[in-house]
Amino acid sequence: MSKNVIVIGSGAAGMTAASEAKRCDPSAKVTVITEDEHIAYSPCVIPWALEGKAKWEDIVMHDAAFYKEERDIEVLTKTKVASVSDADKKVVTEDGKEFAYDSLVIATGSTVFIPPVEGKDLKGVFGIKTINDGKAIESALRDAKKVVIAGAGVIGLEAALAFVNIGKEVTVIEMMDQVIPRIADSDMAEPIQKYLEDCDVKIILKAPLQKVCGTDRVTGVVAAGIEYPADLVIFATGVRANLAIPKMLELDIGQLGAVVTAPTMQAYRRGRLVKDVFLAGDVVQCQSAVVAGPTMSQLGSSAVREGLVAGRNAVGGNAVCGPVASPWVSAIGSKQIAGTGMSLGLASWYGLDVATGKAEGLTRARYYPGGKPLTVKVLADRCSRRIIGAQIVSEEDVTGRINWLTAAIIDGTTADDFAVRAENAYCPPTNQVRDVVLAAVDDLLRKL
Amino acid sequence: MSKNVIVIGSGAAGMTAASEAKRCDPSAKVTVITEDEHIAYSPCVIPWALEGKAKWEDIVMHDAAFYKEERDIEVLTKTKVASVSDADKKVVTEDGKEFAYDSLVIATGSTVFIPPVEGKDLKGVFGIKTINDGKAIESALRDAKKVVIAGAGVIGLEAALAFVNIGKEVTVIEMMDQVIPRIADSDMAEPIQKYLEDCDVKIILKAPLQKVCGTDRVTGVVAAGIEYPADLVIFATGVRANLAIPKMLELDIGQLGAVVTAPTMQAYRRGRLVKDVFLAGDVVQCQSAVVAGPTMSQLGSSAVREGLVAGRNAVGGNAVCGPVASPWVSAIGSKQIAGTGMSLGLASWYGLDVATGKAEGLTRARYYPGGKPLTVKVLADRCSRRIIGAQIVSEEDVTGRINWLTAAIIDGTTADDFAVRAENAYCPPTNQVRDVVLAAVDDLLRKL
Repeated sequence: MSKNVIVIGSGAAGMTAASEAKRCDPSAKVTVITEDEHIAYSPCVIPWALEGKAKWEDIVMHDAAFYKEERDIEVLTKTKVASVSDADKKVVTEDGKEFAYDSLVIATGSTVFIPPVEGKDLKGVFGIKTINDGKAIESALRDAKKVVIAGAGVIGLEAALAFVNIGKEVTVIEMMDQVIPRIADSDMAEPIQKYLEDCDVKIILKAPLQKVCGTDRVTGVVAAGIEYPADLVIFATGVRANLAIPKMLELDIGQLGAVVTAPTMQAYRRGRLVKDVFLAGDVVQCQSAVVAGPTMSQLGSSAVREGLVAGRNAVGGNAVCGPVASPWVSAIGSKQIAGTGMSLGLASWYGLDVATGKAEGLTRARYYPGGKPLTVKVLADRCSRRIIGAQIVSEEDVTGRINWLTAAIIDGTTADDFAVRAENAYCPPTNQVRDVVLAAVDDLLRKL
Repeated sequence: MSKNVIVIGSGAAGMTAASEAKRCDPSAKVTVITEDEHIAYSPCVIPWALEGKAKWEDIVMHDAAFYKEERDIEVLTKTKVASVSDADKKVVTEDGKEFAYDSLVIATGSTVFIPPVEGKDLKGVFGIKTINDGKAIESALRDAKKVVIAGAGVIGLEAALAFVNIGKEVTVIEMMDQVIPRIADSDMAEPIQKYLEDCDVKIILKAPLQKVCGTDRVTGVVAAGIEYPADLVIFATGVRANLAIPKMLELDIGQLGAVVTAPTMQAYRRGRLVKDVFLAGDVVQCQSAVVAGPTMSQLGSSAVREGLVAGRNAVGGNAVCGPVASPWVSAIGSKQIAGTGMSLGLASWYGLDVATGKAEGLTRARYYPGGKPLTVKVLADRCSRRIIGAQIVSEEDVTGRINWLTAAIIDGTTADDFAVRAENAYCPPTNQVRDVVLAAVDDLLRKL
């Protein structure tokens, strides 16, 4: 008998799960229920869409009609779920419709976390997460000169540069003492900060945002006691899992504020697996590849990876997701910065004693024209000697390298073993004869 | 007491070994003996030097004076070794000087293999390996219009495009039925061939070279019965290990025609380790990471890797080289092709039953402008399900990806495990949300 699969949520996780379920079992009936108007798009591209480098209509990969016609998947947009019961195995929407399911996939994603400061609801204050956020920001930008971005994470910095590129005066306000805090080390984040400052982005560090000023519309913000005028304020202050649906089902919520899942992406309730309920994307917490315990991996790539597993298992498969190192990359103008595993800050939070190795080189042989500076930093835990993190700054070719180091972290590779085993391809126009990644590990071994 | 280290050979392997020995034991006396005039340069760059993109003076990283002054390493250039004895632990040069050693590193490299055809010694016929080869070719090119390159390996193809770019008529003659035979699969080599043909390189396949024509100077070649006129003929037909010194010491030569070494890069004689004699570079054969048995890894990156181990151990260290997948990359005009582990051809030679997965995508998100086509092919052994090879064709960002897949091969990762564990970083300007490498492994799993 054909399976009835309901997916709640239509981002990368939900739409991947829906498509994968249908691919694995073409007889399955797959229905996606989503509050959103736009489905299957990449929120990561919003900064570039605001700059005009990508078009709103292009970044929505597919619409509901496409899914219906091409994949035989029903997508109900702008539809809110009123209740879910796994005892009855049904979903009821706010418009009163009932949907029975054999398997349920919850991919409700996350929402921008806006700190509870005075004035946060004024006109001209935005989060930056959905296409509707993006379009609202785009409209508001027309009459805005001064933009304040709260949060110097990668989205905040990408947006900051986009706004400068379209002629705005941009100030980034960050609570911590560096840009890209938490996931990048200060020495690796520093060249990105300098680059942005050279591009006329004003960056204010160690400045917790205290207040959004204005009566009707926003006129500025106060951070660390100083007022910064603003016609537009954008919160890029991270996201929080959307837990309404998981809470309806009383699923276990983990210590990091997202849903606990098994490697099969199945949910738990009071420590026991919940049959036929799967999750994927920003709504879950993941097993860390570095330490025993959970970590967050609210990334588009993680959403797709988890969506594949949830979708496969929703139609009776037995796929699993391994532990995560959560590699990330950001392109900020001509610069690229990438990281994986733990930063120094995170490692210290986990109580690890860390050694670091670092190497600088080029993306081509030294004598070949056009090579870009390439800096690689690798972190190892002094006790196990395992590689636990890495960061790369360059202008090209960082993603393959960070994925390579990610594999080493996930596989529990020691720095010693990496040095013995790793090989790199070489050609003068594409890299150095000993890749800078290997040189960084050589340096790390001298420090361990 | 300070150690006396003699290194024979001054390429990437020899100079790396010398520098690493000195770095690990600054009290060591390190002497390099070499027949060459130019030391420490990258032969891989010769095609670009001929095109004028790199300068001869730049590609020699350091000269003997640099090594003396900066690293306290004595380099004796243009010095031929007459005899070596490990019973006496001494090296005698042809000019009658004797050098005692505590440790000996043999890094005598390789020489272009020119097939024993009629006319191979005519004027206007060259190998392409040393700076002197390069400079001789450069002089001869001035009066040459038609160039024939024997061998469609990566060096031959890189050179072919370089010659076209400086206005020559170029014909590449290849015995096999594809370009980049042996290390690339025909479907991956095909777009490179097409690109070169679009750039006006004439490529003749299935054409074993039978004869070089001419009386004094070369006038053409005959291949598969057809004569191709040529003012200049370049053999890019692979290299053979230089075994004179290893043979003096009666070191074990392996089935692939190079010296057998332990993971410590120590030599064997009649199956027993030879104390204090190490090797590195093109002169050795390596342990394959894919199958039990030896493989060749005559690459600059391998030379450096082996040189580091040989140099460290020459001063009492205990480093080892792991088995090799021998990743390679070639930049041919705007194209890049890379490979690692086994090609289909090599795998069939080893009797492996192989499944392949392939995916095509872009180097950026689909909706982000400027993405280049990216094709990834991954090979697995059907019996163990391990990833045993991979190839990538694109215009950018191939080296990091091939190194990532190389790590999977070296670590014995199954396709299943790769799919469960691998993660990729994502940002619209740098790649797709599910990297094409992962999509290729997804496809592979459907074929396995």
